[in-house]
Amino acid sequence: MQEITTKEALKRLNYIEGHLGGVRRMIELDTYCVDVLKQTYAVRRAIEKLEALLLDGHLHTCVVEHVRQGREEQAVSELLELYELAGK
Amino acid sequence: MQEITTKEALKRLNYIEGHLGGVRRMIELDTYCVDVLKQTYAVRRAIEKLEALLLDGHLHTCVVEHVRQGREEQAVSELLELYELAGK
Amino acid sequence: MQEITTKEALKRLNYIEGHLGGVRRMIELDTYCVDVLKQTYAVRRAIEKLEALLLDGHLHTCVVEHVRQGREEQAVSELLELYELAGK
Amino acid sequence: MQEITTKEALKRLNYIEGHLGGVRRMIELDTYCVDVLKQTYAVRRAIEKLEALLLDGHLHTCVVEHVRQGREEQAVSELLELYELAGK
Repeated sequence: MQEITTKEALKRLNYIEGHLGGVRRMIELDTYCVDVLKQTYAVRRAIEKLEALLLDGHLHTCVVEHVRQGREEQAVSELLELYELAGK
Repeated sequence: MQEITTKEALKRLNYIEGHLGGVRRMIELDTYCVDVLKQTYAVRRAIEKLEALLLDGHLHTCVVEHVRQGREEQAVSELLELYELAGK
Repeated sequence: MQEITTKEALKRLNYIEGHLGGVRRMIELDTYCVDVLKQTYAVRRAIEKLEALLLDGHLHTCVVEHVRQGREEQAVSELLELYELAGK
Repeated sequence: MQEITTKEALKRLNYIEGHLGGVRRMIELDTYCVDVLKQTYAVRRAIEKLEALLLDGHLHTCVVEHVRQGREEQAVSELLELYELAGK
């Protein structure tokens, strides 16, 4: 992974962990379920943004490198696996 | 698109259209909403399978070709756009 | 289902079927896969809008009726089943 | 929220936080992006399971209570909002 991607990924992870801490406090304080659910959805969207960042890095570096060095089959099958897992 | 992918894609499209026709009849006959919704979910899953097939073809042919001919930027940005649209 | 929901649902279904017909033509004409995929995503979003309409009707009529007549367990278990299926 | 739901929700939250800690270490150690992404997908699925638990509790307690006390409109509009947010 490129250094800048790693730095940004860790930043987003901090945000996600902080947000999850907020969800924990809401549950401990017996907050209205609808409000807790809105926050867990927001956490999921934050994770999806982290994934978009990681995928961006993966495509720009590893995938291009794989194809250039004749490892298309690996690059393609990994992308298809990720795509299928993402939708589950 | 490779001929075999086109043929398989049209076959899946036939299935989806037939399934949607079933949903139409259910709605016209005022079927219980829960049962209609279960069928629309099944249609969505069938569309996702068609998409997996199209993406598989795209990765194996166009993406590999783009990278080999120095158009990585196009290949990568299209894949990121598809990934983002797929999750919406 | 209420008459107005049925009418609106059939209208959305017409739109979805027309859109799918467009996808079929794109595949038959061997359109660039990325452009086909963008259209299948749009079809999926249209189906999700149809589902939101059906769910809206279901909640306002059947669910409220079930709870009022003491069939909460049915209402709740059906909603949980729909929620789980929707995410698959 | 019922006590048992709260307890189970906090248990799942512990699991999610532990899993996210694993993702952090993977990123810090510059693990192959594909392997990191597989773990973030697993975290998302764990959050979805937490959400299913919260929704189950919400339907069984608050929603039934709302309808019984004549607040159907609140119950229904909150569920529709949650459904829409969940799919984003």
